Amino acid sequence: MDELHEYEKDGAAIYRASFATIREEADLSRVPADLEKAAVRLIHACGMVDLVEDMDFSADVASAAKAALQAGKPILCDSEMVAHGVTRKRLPADNQVICTLRDERVPEHAAAIGNTRSAAALDLWEEHLEGSVVAIGNAPTVLFHLLNRLAQGGPRPAAVLGFPVGFIGAAESKEALAATRDLPFMTVHGRRGGSAMAAAAVNALASETE
Amino acid sequence: MDELHEYEKDGAAIYRASFATIREEADLSRVPADLEKAAVRLIHACGMVDLVEDMDFSADVASAAKAALQAGKPILCDSEMVAHGVTRKRLPADNQVICTLRDERVPEHAAAIGNTRSAAALDLWEEHLEGSVVAIGNAPTVLFHLLNRLAQGGPRPAAVLGFPVGFIGAAESKEALAATRDLPFMTVHGRRGGSAMAAAAVNALASETE
Repeated sequence: MDELHEYEKDGAAIYRASFATIREEADLSRVPADLEKAAVRLIHACGMVDLVEDMDFSADVASAAKAALQAGKPILCDSEMVAHGVTRKRLPADNQVICTLRDERVPEHAAAIGNTRSAAALDLWEEHLEGSVVAIGNAPTVLFHLLNRLAQGGPRPAAVLGFPVGFIGAAESKEALAATRDLPFMTVHGRRGGSAMAAAAVNALASETE
Repeated sequence: MDELHEYEKDGAAIYRASFATIREEADLSRVPADLEKAAVRLIHACGMVDLVEDMDFSADVASAAKAALQAGKPILCDSEMVAHGVTRKRLPADNQVICTLRDERVPEHAAAIGNTRSAAALDLWEEHLEGSVVAIGNAPTVLFHLLNRLAQGGPRPAAVLGFPVGFIGAAESKEALAATRDLPFMTVHGRRGGSAMAAAAVNALASETE
């Protein structure tokens, strides 16, 4: 039967054409070579080529994240959406993808520390945090809480992919991340961000395959 | 111990301040009253107040989606990220949230119909589709496939919350959705979209609570 709408149905062709469009339109000149694919995937996740203007990163973030993933370190996510956006088959060492937000201890711990449930969930990463890859796609409070814990000598992740989104604290938390001198990071400044970007950053750094 | 960074830690206060900022900055005058909270949540999900300029909808989408959810109809999602972005406690009838993308039949069916795995997964919604709420946050091929099936007399959802994102087919699929005269819909035109927006639309229409 003839179909009303004709459209591209080949998933691989859609990916190729999408990435080609992004590389044609986006100014990727300020992105280092080992982050180029990550920048393309971030743009792909949100449909906005000007996102590259707000991207920020430390020079060592790609190498640090890749080494951690290849060493089998876990990916710690602040939301279920980030965790479910990570493509498992791209992970080099069958890495654990952990989100503790729905752990039954979270509500009580949040009340105890006087912080959001998202920030309380971070405190349950304890045994996994050292050397991990942290992917934040939702809550500024998680990023602030992590930075405060680091300042107090807490366990250090190998890299922080920090993309809190929104109007209250998001931009400030990402400024604070970028101001941290000795922590490999990638972020998008301003209000934009989100789970899709955080997952896209993980997916890009996990595998060279496009 | 003093903390390096001070920030708002009260989740409810963060929501209130975020929504107040959005209502202050965004021009919501063209959004009907029963979609105002949905527009605010869509903006909240992406951090961009100008999103409202690209929003489109049929006049009946809020009432149609609310009635379907209150009647216990399921929410059919094109990606795991959308499904995991739906806040279960906001649903009025403990509604099912269904994503069939990881069903073991999908790869073979995709090859059989010559379409993406996302579009193939839609064909597994069959028994649930009539009267449902469809939430699309990723794949233009799902939206096109749905519209083609509808044109051929397939089962009709009560409402389509259609937010495919990206560079190949996304804008075109949303134009096609908006051109469908007899289907309650909400969308954001252009390349922007994504799972967070699709989930935000569901969450807003599922409950009056902010």
